[in-house]
Amino acid sequence: MIKIGIDAMGGDFAPEVAIEGAVAALKFIGKDSRIVLFGDEKRIKELITKYGSSVANFDIVPTTQVIEMGDHPAKAFIAKKDSSISVGFRHLVEGKIDGFASAGSTGAMMVGSMQVVKPIEGVIRPVLATLIPTVSPDKGIQRAVLMDVGLNVDAKPEVLAQYGLLGSIYAKSALEIENPRVALLNIGEEEGKGNAQAKTTYDLMKGDKRYNFVGNVEASYIFTSKISDVVVADAFVGNSLLKMAEALYRINFRLGGGKRPSLKRMLRPVLERIVPKLYWQQDFWDSMNAESVGGLQVMGVNAPVMIGHGSSSARAICSMILSMERDIKSNFPAKLREALKESAPAEAEA
Amino acid sequence: MIKIGIDAMGGDFAPEVAIEGAVAALKFIGKDSRIVLFGDEKRIKELITKYGSSVANFDIVPTTQVIEMGDHPAKAFIAKKDSSISVGFRHLVEGKIDGFASAGSTGAMMVGSMQVVKPIEGVIRPVLATLIPTVSPDKGIQRAVLMDVGLNVDAKPEVLAQYGLLGSIYAKSALEIENPRVALLNIGEEEGKGNAQAKTTYDLMKGDKRYNFVGNVEASYIFTSKISDVVVADAFVGNSLLKMAEALYRINFRLGGGKRPSLKRMLRPVLERIVPKLYWQQDFWDSMNAESVGGLQVMGVNAPVMIGHGSSSARAICSMILSMERDIKSNFPAKLREALKESAPAEAEA
Repeated sequence: MIKIGIDAMGGDFAPEVAIEGAVAALKFIGKDSRIVLFGDEKRIKELITKYGSSVANFDIVPTTQVIEMGDHPAKAFIAKKDSSISVGFRHLVEGKIDGFASAGSTGAMMVGSMQVVKPIEGVIRPVLATLIPTVSPDKGIQRAVLMDVGLNVDAKPEVLAQYGLLGSIYAKSALEIENPRVALLNIGEEEGKGNAQAKTTYDLMKGDKRYNFVGNVEASYIFTSKISDVVVADAFVGNSLLKMAEALYRINFRLGGGKRPSLKRMLRPVLERIVPKLYWQQDFWDSMNAESVGGLQVMGVNAPVMIGHGSSSARAICSMILSMERDIKSNFPAKLREALKESAPAEAEA
Repeated sequence: MIKIGIDAMGGDFAPEVAIEGAVAALKFIGKDSRIVLFGDEKRIKELITKYGSSVANFDIVPTTQVIEMGDHPAKAFIAKKDSSISVGFRHLVEGKIDGFASAGSTGAMMVGSMQVVKPIEGVIRPVLATLIPTVSPDKGIQRAVLMDVGLNVDAKPEVLAQYGLLGSIYAKSALEIENPRVALLNIGEEEGKGNAQAKTTYDLMKGDKRYNFVGNVEASYIFTSKISDVVVADAFVGNSLLKMAEALYRINFRLGGGKRPSLKRMLRPVLERIVPKLYWQQDFWDSMNAESVGGLQVMGVNAPVMIGHGSSSARAICSMILSMERDIKSNFPAKLREALKESAPAEAEA
């Protein structure tokens, strides 16, 4: 039995959209999966009924407090012992749930990740990762891992080089990519390009034989599957790229690239079989939509943790639950623990 | 008389597309403007005729050599004294032309900018800038300056802070924005966010009263006109953002967002007057197209210099010529010299 822990109180539109999303997710999760909701029991039960499901379809862990966006994350995490996030993390570390996801306070989620679930031994710095869509002429839309999208700025080269291992194991276990190609985000393809951080990181990554380092990747290529399955960047750059991608998605959507009803769209079920490429543009931008990604992974800690956008819609929460289920099934933290025990990186070649 | 110097031999498809683009540009440049072509005289004349224009419409400066992409830029610049780029820069510094643009070797163009035209006194580091489209709900598509998009990585905070002045004067003189809002690209809006470089730069920019510093801008907002007209970033980040934007343009185009004939497009002249917003998506992505931007500005040197994509098409060359004409008319380098003489930055507030 897989237990997917969800903060019902997290996000700007909680608990409404959290429960609406959870009810929607019921249709897609496996038979062995169960959604465990943390939050105001009465409201949760009302909303489950409102959205047309039965309370029996969920586990509910009643909590009485909520960490608000304005709260100091570290202080609130301790002071609000009965908050949905604090209780969620206690359940996670005690093995009562297999993963925990919230669209609430990012800061509090990081406190829980670092201080309750804790970094895996050997991980220098946990990292925030996200999935991005890639498009290729033959395979259509696939996914790649972009990391770090927001945690460690001015990261030491050793830290960046280790992201490569984290991302590689994640891509292998969760995305089922056999030998993930790990690349360093840089402003040129050739070795020796970039800033001081990138140059040193390149050497370290090249020397680490635990993953398939394929060299530098320029930002031009991260949305194609041409070069890499895992893109490693400092948080300053990764966060900026992610924000820009999301912004271009929104601009494209608002300016008319969104899902307006159209003949082509209505005919999709038929046309898709004949000319799949007709829908690649729509699919690409759909995959770029934060709502279909669900959230950011906290990688390098002892259990799957996912942080959703504060502005998550029901669709985003549903995606978050499905992504969390996939991550739990991947058994990624255990595989990473294994990899870190087994081997130390080879010395970087000069 | 404005003399627009163009390297007829620069770029992957030169001289063909260079001349095709120059002939196309004739329709759009002012009566007082004249295009001066540097390159193989015989070929240039043949191609002018081929593309349906008359040799009398251009000035031609015959050159016999070409700096190739494989050449070492600094060495080739000196060794190939009669190359189109070397001769172009000599003409520029002697005032025989008012600006020089090429889609050829970026390295050689930088050598010419730094060693022949030379940085303006007081400019710590010249910088590569580009125009990006911004969209706003009321004004449609406008433009902003993004800099540095490729020159100085690991830039000192003083260097970044000075970009603000360069960009502000450029936006005022070339884009006719009255009081350009200058922002620092960062991963959070609030003061104190970001990496070490951004934090120190913020303080310096805040203390510089010669331009209108409006604080941090996240990459989410650089394509809206909400926050900034000038976006300052380290070259590592700026280059990555630009490359990603161009890539998303290409992906969007290839996946079906391109200019395929459609009823809506054919009806554009009529519909545009009634519902201009119908075309904002198309216009936005068109403006994102490197072909309509023309090239990157080398800012901070004593004359307008522009570097086009190696893969420039005739349309890109035409845009480059028109952008160069605009930059020449802006008299930007003289205004920057003036500003640097007049004032020194106030000390940064602690």
